[in-house]
Amino acid sequence: MPRYKLVVEYDGTPYVGWQRQDNGRSVQGAIEKAIFDMTSEEVTLRAAGRTDSGVHALGQVCHVDLQKPWKPQTVANALNAHLAMDEQLIAIVSAELVDEDFDARFSATKRHYLYRIINRPAPSAIDAFRAWHVKKPLDVALMQRAADELVGYHDFTTFRSSHCQAKNPNRTIESIAVSRVGELIEIRASAQSFLHNQIRSFAGTLKLAGEGKWTAEDVRAALEARDRSRCGPVAPPYGLFFMAVEYGDKSTLLRLETDE
Amino acid sequence: MPRYKLVVEYDGTPYVGWQRQDNGRSVQGAIEKAIFDMTSEEVTLRAAGRTDSGVHALGQVCHVDLQKPWKPQTVANALNAHLAMDEQLIAIVSAELVDEDFDARFSATKRHYLYRIINRPAPSAIDAFRAWHVKKPLDVALMQRAADELVGYHDFTTFRSSHCQAKNPNRTIESIAVSRVGELIEIRASAQSFLHNQIRSFAGTLKLAGEGKWTAEDVRAALEARDRSRCGPVAPPYGLFFMAVEYGDKSTLLRLETDE
Repeated sequence: MPRYKLVVEYDGTPYVGWQRQDNGRSVQGAIEKAIFDMTSEEVTLRAAGRTDSGVHALGQVCHVDLQKPWKPQTVANALNAHLAMDEQLIAIVSAELVDEDFDARFSATKRHYLYRIINRPAPSAIDAFRAWHVKKPLDVALMQRAADELVGYHDFTTFRSSHCQAKNPNRTIESIAVSRVGELIEIRASAQSFLHNQIRSFAGTLKLAGEGKWTAEDVRAALEARDRSRCGPVAPPYGLFFMAVEYGDKSTLLRLETDE
Repeated sequence: MPRYKLVVEYDGTPYVGWQRQDNGRSVQGAIEKAIFDMTSEEVTLRAAGRTDSGVHALGQVCHVDLQKPWKPQTVANALNAHLAMDEQLIAIVSAELVDEDFDARFSATKRHYLYRIINRPAPSAIDAFRAWHVKKPLDVALMQRAADELVGYHDFTTFRSSHCQAKNPNRTIESIAVSRVGELIEIRASAQSFLHNQIRSFAGTLKLAGEGKWTAEDVRAALEARDRSRCGPVAPPYGLFFMAVEYGDKSTLLRLETDE
């Protein structure tokens, strides 16, 4: 059976998240339904990241096996035609044929996320569901200094959801870059894999650093405590964007840190 | 009576446009209702630009006279609290007290608009209602060359809606800048005032130039024909953002071109 890699963009606002659930509309369910409408095949997608309710994506990746060898562009176009009926909230950015050992989740070598904060007194209409509104002025330099404490290989027990199912709380955060463009603050984080709620936990803590409430040393102490109760507030989901996934060296060694 | 200048941001998707109308929700109507809920005063706002249905704004400006001298920040906060109930589609970015001769429409010395095109084969979910989806690759350099023909003082009969109520079809377009950031093409246009549908008419025509269908000379010929039927297609409203209004020299001479 031919395997397809799909790059997916979505506005996560009305969804219960990526993963199919009994209690509402999911992104996975919407795409699987579009595939059924196109091919009459009941499939199960596997994705690089199971984004939470309200989280958006510009470059989520999933894979699917289909019975019939459709041209990739036909798959993308047909799915987009079906998905357009669903308020244009989901789009297939690209489809390509991949080897059968390609796995959207386990073959991923790097994941890139963006967390957006609108930092001004007034709320935003255009970004109401696409950025966290923080009224107090945030100092981006202080946020970056705190972020630097989180980069590298650490036990991130402090910065993961108590519901996180990963056996191993250790991760290697490759980079966190905090920047400001006018009223918008962008936090860009990259790693092979992240724990559940890790970036939203980072963002909430970096906000405290930007307000001057926590120093970089406070952040390091919270990290070293390996204690969930030492985390700052978890930032809201609607500021988070799953930007891209890289698939590089497919060595199975790379799966060591990918147990989520 | 104290006069307030309000800077307003909105997602125009569900509205019939800025202007109050009998046939649906308007941005003006929503803000006037919020003012009534706050002050029990029935007011009429005057805005710098009467944006069409689906058009967005980051920096629309309007003014209103209130009986009671509220603190400007109180006006902004109270209106935002009322507007937040309306799906957070409208936000008051700022409020300030202005002289009674300030007029959001007639005192404006420069208006800035942005037209966004998402230029790639796949549609966009995040920008579905915030950018025009153009599949064919557009050449930004060709678009800029065509745009240069539209800058300056001209009779823009070709590039205005047949419903445009301005007596005078002459306008001075100060600048049009076309740029690409990845898959996004931005057309930024500035002038003291624009005709109805002028920027959307420009955008549709510049798309033809970017596709190589029209040369800069074709655009100039269309302009010089002063004939609405020579315009390219009018680009859809949802790519258009009203970005900012400048209020500089308040000389009444500046009203000469502002008869819309």
